[in-house]
Amino acid sequence: MLQAVLLDISGVLYEDDRPLPGALQAVQQLQDKGYPLRLITNTSRQGRAAIHRQLTAMGFAVTPQQIFTSPQAVLRHVRMAGLRPYCLIHPGLEDEFADLLDLPEPNAVVLGDAEMRFDYAHLDRAFQLLLDGAPLICMGDNRYFRGQGALHLDAGPFVRALEYAAGTTALVLGKPSAAFYASALEDLGASAEATLMIGDDVIADVQGALAGGLRACLVRTGKYRAGDELRAPTAWVAADLAEAVARFC
Amino acid sequence: MLQAVLLDISGVLYEDDRPLPGALQAVQQLQDKGYPLRLITNTSRQGRAAIHRQLTAMGFAVTPQQIFTSPQAVLRHVRMAGLRPYCLIHPGLEDEFADLLDLPEPNAVVLGDAEMRFDYAHLDRAFQLLLDGAPLICMGDNRYFRGQGALHLDAGPFVRALEYAAGTTALVLGKPSAAFYASALEDLGASAEATLMIGDDVIADVQGALAGGLRACLVRTGKYRAGDELRAPTAWVAADLAEAVARFC
Repeated sequence: MLQAVLLDISGVLYEDDRPLPGALQAVQQLQDKGYPLRLITNTSRQGRAAIHRQLTAMGFAVTPQQIFTSPQAVLRHVRMAGLRPYCLIHPGLEDEFADLLDLPEPNAVVLGDAEMRFDYAHLDRAFQLLLDGAPLICMGDNRYFRGQGALHLDAGPFVRALEYAAGTTALVLGKPSAAFYASALEDLGASAEATLMIGDDVIADVQGALAGGLRACLVRTGKYRAGDELRAPTAWVAADLAEAVARFC
Repeated sequence: MLQAVLLDISGVLYEDDRPLPGALQAVQQLQDKGYPLRLITNTSRQGRAAIHRQLTAMGFAVTPQQIFTSPQAVLRHVRMAGLRPYCLIHPGLEDEFADLLDLPEPNAVVLGDAEMRFDYAHLDRAFQLLLDGAPLICMGDNRYFRGQGALHLDAGPFVRALEYAAGTTALVLGKPSAAFYASALEDLGASAEATLMIGDDVIADVQGALAGGLRACLVRTGKYRAGDELRAPTAWVAADLAEAVARFC
């Protein structure tokens, strides 16, 4: 029945830059069994190439094409729709978006975790494009992230700011949005019903996948907290990736 | 019955920097009759002193103390609550807020139309204070304003951004909020039922005042558009300030 697998990355494959016990072997087993596979993440501060280097340095045997990020989902959408985006993105994504930067007469707004580029002039420019009918396409709408011992504004507040200003609703291509899961499945060429998502975040990974019609397995590693399974009663549960793959794949 | 009067400024007293017909005399009549009077505005790019200079240059006989702006309402609130605000405000307000700038260990966030100061570092600092429990106090939550032939982001989008990030709700001390009208009445020392608000903006001036329990008169000058009276059926209506004062005061 199961035909394809999606894996969250941080907290499922590794913690603190070290592979979780059995994770390297579990990924290899999925590859050996021939499952179409995507490692999915909302990371919008680095491109697929950088994530691939990081994973291979830890010993994971995956190809760059098996990594599907929110920025990848945005690129996929922008290219299929033939849009010319105005990009408010993190410098870490500039290589990946190289052919879409500084296009004349933009007709869409792409917003990632632009951090220091979130200033009045850039946001006002984005606002004016939205008023002209440009769609707002985002890599996620997280409220904040933890860095250097404190919480900091993520992209979500700026998404809400522009939505309110222009009276529009963003297309959010990041977990847990159904649109993101749909994009990953298209990239994978698999149906939702035959695809299993394995993750440690009960909202982004598990509830999101279930809402998109996928099967989902919550692992008790990474950001898992006791009782999280109660928030997704129809999900499978496993101690970690190794057990999830051994039992369900 | 009527004991006090509130007047909107732009579009009621003047248009294009010139007093509207009969407006100078109407204000003088209100003064002569001894009504406690406040000229109220959401302007958060200039202080009361600058507005007073502008009005007296046009010939209006009012004192600075009769001008009550959103920044004034914020100052009133901050001082009465003994707060030490972190101020994200327009440079035009720095004189008025001089004794509140750069205070150590701020325990509140004050947000006006900061324009170019709306950047990641300032917003992230405000966010962290909100996480620590500081209240968010705003001079308005307008979505945009018109300037130099285009619409530009006003403070409202940044209010929504911080509310979303920190999971809080701002205290908005600008028209049409009931809190702003309550503050103006306190400054005036008058009760809502005995106070008349005269304005050209059916939402900010008229609906706002009615919701706060005041009486309201819509004038057909400034931003008035045909049919606006249908959006506030319980408001009085007059051709302009001169007629409103002659008929109702």
